[in-house]
Amino acid sequence: MSGSHRRRRSRRQQASVSPSDTIQAPAYITRKIPEYELLGEEGLALIEANADKILEEIGINFCNNNAALTRLKQAGAAIDGERVRFPKGLCRKLIQDNAPKEFTQHARNPLKNVIIGGKHTVLVPAYGSPFVRNLDEGRRYATIEDFINFIKLAYMTPHLHHSGGTICEPVDLPVNKRHFDMLYSHIKYSDKPFMGSVTAPERAEDTVEICKILFGDNYLDNDTGKPKTITTSLINANSPMTYDDTMLGALTVYARNNQATIISPFILAGAMSPVSVAGTATQALAEGLAGMAYAQLVNPGTPVIFGCFASSISMTNGAPTFGTPEPSLILYLMASLSRRLGVPFRSGGGFNAAKTSDTQAGYESANSLLPAINAGVNFMLHTAGWLEGGLVMGYEKFIMDCDQAGMLAVFANGIDLSENGQALSAIEEVGPGDHYLGCTHTKENFRNAFYRSPIMDNNSFEQWHEDGELNLTQRANAFYKKQLADYQPPELDADIDAALCEYIKKRKKSFPDSNIS
Amino acid sequence: MSGSHRRRRSRRQQASVSPSDTIQAPAYITRKIPEYELLGEEGLALIEANADKILEEIGINFCNNNAALTRLKQAGAAIDGERVRFPKGLCRKLIQDNAPKEFTQHARNPLKNVIIGGKHTVLVPAYGSPFVRNLDEGRRYATIEDFINFIKLAYMTPHLHHSGGTICEPVDLPVNKRHFDMLYSHIKYSDKPFMGSVTAPERAEDTVEICKILFGDNYLDNDTGKPKTITTSLINANSPMTYDDTMLGALTVYARNNQATIISPFILAGAMSPVSVAGTATQALAEGLAGMAYAQLVNPGTPVIFGCFASSISMTNGAPTFGTPEPSLILYLMASLSRRLGVPFRSGGGFNAAKTSDTQAGYESANSLLPAINAGVNFMLHTAGWLEGGLVMGYEKFIMDCDQAGMLAVFANGIDLSENGQALSAIEEVGPGDHYLGCTHTKENFRNAFYRSPIMDNNSFEQWHEDGELNLTQRANAFYKKQLADYQPPELDADIDAALCEYIKKRKKSFPDSNIS
Repeated sequence: MSGSHRRRRSRRQQASVSPSDTIQAPAYITRKIPEYELLGEEGLALIEANADKILEEIGINFCNNNAALTRLKQAGAAIDGERVRFPKGLCRKLIQDNAPKEFTQHARNPLKNVIIGGKHTVLVPAYGSPFVRNLDEGRRYATIEDFINFIKLAYMTPHLHHSGGTICEPVDLPVNKRHFDMLYSHIKYSDKPFMGSVTAPERAEDTVEICKILFGDNYLDNDTGKPKTITTSLINANSPMTYDDTMLGALTVYARNNQATIISPFILAGAMSPVSVAGTATQALAEGLAGMAYAQLVNPGTPVIFGCFASSISMTNGAPTFGTPEPSLILYLMASLSRRLGVPFRSGGGFNAAKTSDTQAGYESANSLLPAINAGVNFMLHTAGWLEGGLVMGYEKFIMDCDQAGMLAVFANGIDLSENGQALSAIEEVGPGDHYLGCTHTKENFRNAFYRSPIMDNNSFEQWHEDGELNLTQRANAFYKKQLADYQPPELDADIDAALCEYIKKRKKSFPDSNIS
Repeated sequence: MSGSHRRRRSRRQQASVSPSDTIQAPAYITRKIPEYELLGEEGLALIEANADKILEEIGINFCNNNAALTRLKQAGAAIDGERVRFPKGLCRKLIQDNAPKEFTQHARNPLKNVIIGGKHTVLVPAYGSPFVRNLDEGRRYATIEDFINFIKLAYMTPHLHHSGGTICEPVDLPVNKRHFDMLYSHIKYSDKPFMGSVTAPERAEDTVEICKILFGDNYLDNDTGKPKTITTSLINANSPMTYDDTMLGALTVYARNNQATIISPFILAGAMSPVSVAGTATQALAEGLAGMAYAQLVNPGTPVIFGCFASSISMTNGAPTFGTPEPSLILYLMASLSRRLGVPFRSGGGFNAAKTSDTQAGYESANSLLPAINAGVNFMLHTAGWLEGGLVMGYEKFIMDCDQAGMLAVFANGIDLSENGQALSAIEEVGPGDHYLGCTHTKENFRNAFYRSPIMDNNSFEQWHEDGELNLTQRANAFYKKQLADYQPPELDADIDAALCEYIKKRKKSFPDSNIS
């Protein structure tokens, strides 16, 4: 790092710790509640044994990537074409000997670093939709302006801890260059941690380069000398039991650079896995084990998150369904299996198949969000904004889900059993037949006593009628517009900003635009 | 019982076990999942000790009821005016020595008997709203026609196990006689178990008399010689720490006749209990202990359910709020305390403060329904229909909540770990890179594999658009109308029907109409 980089960095760090930062909500949730364990030792051990059998007897395909096959062979796997079979226990051993149980993902504002794993939960916007929806315009293709809007909204809410990744696809930009604009927007308009590009290995390389510029001589960790983990990126397995070359390429780049990857079987149960909860969990465990073990072969100790995205499909029309009981059962199971393995777990989110943010969206989203917090999910991608099975990012839906995220944090904080929490003094003061509205304990505690939603309407029918009979979508519509109008960007060092723009400009010039992924 | 009564009964019982009954869903849920325990031994013991302190030092008011005070004094309580203080452990001992851990509530169709307590969960319609709402008419006062409509809907859904009680208030009938019409409608239009009247002791007596006519010489249990438990009725404490004469009167009648009562502190936390989770739970436990102990004094062994209705209030406008995290924490806590005490537990429901069945209703209801099933609630009053903090019974909302109830049952059934559930054969058959849609295991299981909602839309955007872009409320509106149009009443023995009508007619004639409760 040059001396000028070092000076910039030191200025930037000072600037970022402004007084306003210090009154922010916690950078992530630390759960004080126990995890809900659906199965006991016997059931979980059975699923682990079955997953081992899949790895040993059926195997996993690693497609079109000789380097991966060579690495796996050297580690002791049996290679048959693209099929890789693992001796019993090999994957588990590679992961448990090397992968961290929890790790820090660094934000450009160190107050917003997040710890991923253990009792910590990081809530993250939804990811990957080509469309957006709002009450005024309905459904339309997403643009970079939408992308930036959602970054601003995620930055402003105290209830999300992360800026996310491909919050929506900016389809107005060329496919092979839009990752530059997405990364830059995350950095420019937010100071929360973000995700990297996975759609091609060279885009992963760009992500790493951009992190190096952003962090300057703070890129390497002082103690370990290794790169800091600045991005967490989403590597989907092609279920059943397949890793394709694109994902393996991106995974390899990130692992080599100590950047975190989420290894996620993406499963529509009944189509991409057996039409059963235990069968789906078994397959997902085998897939995850193979992917995470491979990451440890690339760079022992690189942070990995075990991910599981599982929905079931409608047996009537083959469409994915959300908020139904079977995916919840799978989620609980995978969280338990992940804890036994000893790696952070990603799952959950505000899933639904609703076309608009109607009542279906509400039920289904809550049905997906609550199990995730009860199960002890560490990284909850898709917490906010998801509509229509992930095809649409909803503006109003985003606001609603952020409100729910705030409630999850309160729930995860558990029960206050301090003397003040026990409140015996209040019960003594008030006694039978009276009310607590004016008692000392209430006066001392009412400000922070109960979660206050900025968008739910608890007024009387008469007041609600007088206010225009607005539904939740209408109230959320007003809320997001106010947020965008009030947005103030976090400070970004001008030299770093310029360096980022220069790198991006140069790279964009170096190859032609293309819309073929 | 007369000979003719005996003959009627025997005909009725034969008639009720028709072929169509045998293909009904299970009469109640038996949970195969563990209960989610938020606190460990130390925390729960602390709350129990604090509740004991309230009972011993502060005491509970039993208002305007000398018989109750005399009974309590004889049992060892200290009486000071209407204030009753209990020696440490007395209430717990009375309950644990006498109250059943679980009991059967009998339905006129014995296939629909429910077991209340233990690993069983009974889902029950909402209760007590003066208004109804549907998409066509908006919000209006409820009538006996609405009341009957909801009984029909509850009868037809396989997902509710109970006909409920005051599903909505038939305000077109005189206050002091409407209990006759409500009870008769439950019996006439459904064969599921139902709740009794609690608004005056003599209405509780009417309820018991009607049960006697309905069950004839089957009213007494063959083995014990005691009356069968045919009704479960809702006794609310007037929090803080008060039982009024009306509720004590109804409680006494039911307890004496071996009819079940739900002893429920009804709490808006912050107004009727301390503005904290632990404080509210402590007070509710003390109140419940006193009420249930009193029931055991009236008739040792009479079935009681420990109930807890707790919502928090908005610290902005004092209105009750629902679907927020604090009531969930209280619910989990009360369920654990109830299990330790060894009595069935009532709580939960599709609570919300929404004025219409909009997205707020969806989120908040799911946020209240899920904790109830995870906590192991045994009797879930208010499962379906609740809107506007309980002021409104929604037709469409009822259908939506029934659908959610169906999902709760699937979730509570847990994970199938049989060989078929493990589905290894499917994974072997399909292998990496292929799909499961046509494999043997899928063909054998797809019919019952995943929960199918009759009202959620999982179709593509294009299909949804073609179908008229209906939201969930619109689809539920069509669904409930179809149900009412298709309704077929369960058979009711003509002699019993006539006897019920005769009793009701006679009683109605015996005193003038009044609308002063």
